[in-house]
Amino acid sequence: MSETDLSQALFPHARDAVRALRPSQIREVANAGFGLDDVLPFWFGESDRVTPPFIRNAASEALAAGATFYTHNLGIAPLRAALAGYVSTLHGATAVDHVAVTSAGVNALMLAAQLVVGAGDRVVEVTPLWPNLVEIPKILGAHVETVALDYGPRGWTLDLERLLTALTPATKLLMLNSPNNPTGWVMTRDEQRTVLDHCRRNGIWVIADEVYERLYYAGHEHGVAPSFLDLASRDERVICVNSFSKAWLMTGWRLGWIVAPAQLMDDLGKLIEYNTSCAPAFVQQAGLAALQQGEAFTQQLVGELKASRDHLVRALSALPEVDVKAPAGAMYLFFSLPGAAAGSLDLCKALVRDARIGLAPGSAFGPEGEGFVRWCYACDTARLDEGVARLRRFLEGRWAAERA
Amino acid sequence: MSETDLSQALFPHARDAVRALRPSQIREVANAGFGLDDVLPFWFGESDRVTPPFIRNAASEALAAGATFYTHNLGIAPLRAALAGYVSTLHGATAVDHVAVTSAGVNALMLAAQLVVGAGDRVVEVTPLWPNLVEIPKILGAHVETVALDYGPRGWTLDLERLLTALTPATKLLMLNSPNNPTGWVMTRDEQRTVLDHCRRNGIWVIADEVYERLYYAGHEHGVAPSFLDLASRDERVICVNSFSKAWLMTGWRLGWIVAPAQLMDDLGKLIEYNTSCAPAFVQQAGLAALQQGEAFTQQLVGELKASRDHLVRALSALPEVDVKAPAGAMYLFFSLPGAAAGSLDLCKALVRDARIGLAPGSAFGPEGEGFVRWCYACDTARLDEGVARLRRFLEGRWAAERA
Repeated sequence: MSETDLSQALFPHARDAVRALRPSQIREVANAGFGLDDVLPFWFGESDRVTPPFIRNAASEALAAGATFYTHNLGIAPLRAALAGYVSTLHGATAVDHVAVTSAGVNALMLAAQLVVGAGDRVVEVTPLWPNLVEIPKILGAHVETVALDYGPRGWTLDLERLLTALTPATKLLMLNSPNNPTGWVMTRDEQRTVLDHCRRNGIWVIADEVYERLYYAGHEHGVAPSFLDLASRDERVICVNSFSKAWLMTGWRLGWIVAPAQLMDDLGKLIEYNTSCAPAFVQQAGLAALQQGEAFTQQLVGELKASRDHLVRALSALPEVDVKAPAGAMYLFFSLPGAAAGSLDLCKALVRDARIGLAPGSAFGPEGEGFVRWCYACDTARLDEGVARLRRFLEGRWAAERA
Repeated sequence: MSETDLSQALFPHARDAVRALRPSQIREVANAGFGLDDVLPFWFGESDRVTPPFIRNAASEALAAGATFYTHNLGIAPLRAALAGYVSTLHGATAVDHVAVTSAGVNALMLAAQLVVGAGDRVVEVTPLWPNLVEIPKILGAHVETVALDYGPRGWTLDLERLLTALTPATKLLMLNSPNNPTGWVMTRDEQRTVLDHCRRNGIWVIADEVYERLYYAGHEHGVAPSFLDLASRDERVICVNSFSKAWLMTGWRLGWIVAPAQLMDDLGKLIEYNTSCAPAFVQQAGLAALQQGEAFTQQLVGELKASRDHLVRALSALPEVDVKAPAGAMYLFFSLPGAAAGSLDLCKALVRDARIGLAPGSAFGPEGEGFVRWCYACDTARLDEGVARLRRFLEGRWAAERA
């Protein structure tokens, strides 16, 4: 090989669409705190509590029993049956042939996107938003248009007309996350009905990311957020994505599921085969235990999260110049901080470095999130109090410096 | 919504590229045996043995210790370090920043393909081949051209000139599996060198699926098959994919890894985030135990597989009109059977229905595999003998029917 050949071969890079994907700004902030062992981490979307023992034990028992083989692409039969029962209880009759097990909620989103969109397709999303929903269609060559939520006296709200205008007949897919990460915004039943009717008329698919549906504090209907599954038939262009991560504290297990038209299941099975083939058998057994024995746990968890939310809203509201409202869902406060408008990424790096408090910058969730920070309140109130105390000292230091 | 709108909304289907993906013919055969409890299953690429206890225990201990949280996208640090050490031992110095953990070998293939190919790209593959390698680029909108191996007195061989001719300058990627599933064909070191030089000159990426590298029976170089890692620098356009499934009997765990240029790792980390985010933490701990304590186990396993291979070759060779050769790698015999030329799918359905023996049809691995069947010999010799006895009775019945 000549020198020229060698230089051509070296320094390879990924294709442009992949290089253009956003890296995680949350990780960039976390890296700024690397080596600091006394940081209070509120930046990730994860509780600080370990998965409950009855779920961990189910996995260990399955391992001891030898559940180490491939499973059916769509999941083991008892888990699919339990999921169909669970979904039926929450959202009306749902047969097993509408349910598939996936290797995480994000994997379910990737699979659902692969089912529906390819190169050149137009996708619409409501932002600020967990970046994964926005970036996944781009990996498949699709174009993503965003419609921003508004922030006002009632917190984060949707201008429904703006969304409907964006959902043109040339749109292939609406990809929507409610309850929303990072804002906690929850789409109302009426909004869902209007959007679904519009999408039906225009032949637009809906992928609804409802992984936070149980983390809903408005209290209607068993404490479950409004779902597209409540309105849609099981055989129309609606794919609902969910996960064991939030309601059973199983983030690290990478287990999710999809509810979709039965007519899609053969094609979904092929995509699962070509993406991960199946979730680990013993992980699926743990998911089964979560569904069969976990309802009381989930209800208690949601009560604790609501208390944490209210506690943090009160504590932050006591800070001068901090504007914060209690959202109806998820496990985050997404609020403005003095100094964030000039750059939430820089502010969050300063917060971790100077105050040892880890928050996620609003800009991590799209330009629409700039000026805000995200605080995950899935921890005990003592830790929240210490975080607020550190934030207060940080802000007071800044104000003192400004006055000086 | 009008009746017309409703009929438009109902009966949705996946996009054309997904509908065109091949479903598994192996599963179609397995379905033909559904409800029959006395079938001897040689159809799947999986040992009949459970994962060894020291690996299962490592996962259970990690679960007990609370390893239920998200990990770094590229994997936990000790596993990446152990993988770098393992790869360095087999194939020369490999730093940690060239290694990423994935949610299965097939997931590694999907991620590697996402890194490199998009809509309209040209991909070349050598067949017969495990369908996953052929179908993955199609999900991303790429075109796949195949170059068929030849079957002759020396078993399966590659016409190297034909492959080089197919690797035009307009080709983006060569995706190659050696040792090969289903044929057991192993690309020689010289062939690899010629192909790599050609790809360098033409700016073609290589994704090498080397998950069967330890299942190599020619005995050179620690019993490891020739690898592109032995020839390539770590910074050129070569991505090697591997898995814990075969060498440590961990099929159901869905754990794999990628060795790639360090310059790709940031982009690979983003893709992992958007596909599965990470492999479960306790599964990664099990992989660490496999690497740290599993070498003797793997070496013994390979010896047993070699003995099974030789046993089955002898037993099948004793059947009239059955042509079978011992391949250098993997865990399959891919051989012609009387009647397979007329349709291996129909023959395999008849075999499961009438003789209770489960084989994979050659056509499952592309049209180039028609006329053959695949037998996975990863089981004890008693089961192999019973399988051969059933096959003999089936063939004798057919011959008797033909003579009558």
